[in-house]
Amino acid sequence: MEEHLRQLIRSIPDFPKEGILFRDITTLLKDAEGFRMAVEAMIAPYKDKKIDKIVCVEARGFLFGGAMGYLMGCGVVPVRKPGKLPYDTEKQAYTLEYGTASVEIHKDALKPGEHVLIVDDLLATGGTAKATAELVERLGGEILSIVFLVELLGLEGRKLLDKYDVFSVITYE
Amino acid sequence: MEEHLRQLIRSIPDFPKEGILFRDITTLLKDAEGFRMAVEAMIAPYKDKKIDKIVCVEARGFLFGGAMGYLMGCGVVPVRKPGKLPYDTEKQAYTLEYGTASVEIHKDALKPGEHVLIVDDLLATGGTAKATAELVERLGGEILSIVFLVELLGLEGRKLLDKYDVFSVITYE
Repeated sequence: MEEHLRQLIRSIPDFPKEGILFRDITTLLKDAEGFRMAVEAMIAPYKDKKIDKIVCVEARGFLFGGAMGYLMGCGVVPVRKPGKLPYDTEKQAYTLEYGTASVEIHKDALKPGEHVLIVDDLLATGGTAKATAELVERLGGEILSIVFLVELLGLEGRKLLDKYDVFSVITYE
Repeated sequence: MEEHLRQLIRSIPDFPKEGILFRDITTLLKDAEGFRMAVEAMIAPYKDKKIDKIVCVEARGFLFGGAMGYLMGCGVVPVRKPGKLPYDTEKQAYTLEYGTASVEIHKDALKPGEHVLIVDDLLATGGTAKATAELVERLGGEILSIVFLVELLGLEGRKLLDKYDVFSVITYE
């Protein structure tokens, strides 16, 4: 199954800049059967767990987070770039290759003790996921796992997330 | 049902700027039952139709597009802001209150003749939806309907979209 999904992903050299081999999931998304399999693989480990909220990261994480929330009967919480969420937010910065970026969550997005899956499409360096996890913890959420469709092993994002359970469906060296 | 969903939406004055009453759907998204009802209401008119692709608009449209694509057994196609899609794209500009913006779609996202639902969270002036519809048509897609969770009637977005069937679940004057 992982191999079938991997073949639906297109690799694009030098995007967004020279030397980067971009894993383009849009070719998987547009394949109805591939998208269904991907979503089901992402929720499979949590079928018997009590999950209250899917916290998903802008923007591609929303495509999976929405489907997973519906399927699992959970509420869905968007984590967004600064200035996009209209109510009171918590904000967390993280480091990029050059400089920093931030993500935000609504302060009332979670109740203390709620069980959370964090969802995004891709684990690269893990910076966004770690910042998201810190936001969830600041609101008192309990992180059961951080779930990705694709993991780029070479960037060692798992190391940055070593406090957490991390699950990915498709890995690349 | 519309009334129940409307009560889950929070209204925030003066966001993103003074004089605008922002309809915040995050309070609906985080309510598992409300999110489920919203997604089911958005697909209800199309249950017996042949739909090949859900084309959804960055970013909040992805939350609904992913769930709808899964439920309807369709492929999902993201329409994004410029520079986000890695492969060859078609681009369409649209007018904002001040200036213009653009959206893009991958050139190979649709096959000619495919049946498409366009999905976004909110119909305001309709500019983004119209630009998205033009992209879909340029690729040869047939637009069955443009579907929104929320419609702001006062902004008359439907007029701009009068070539198309438009469906919204919740309306505000």
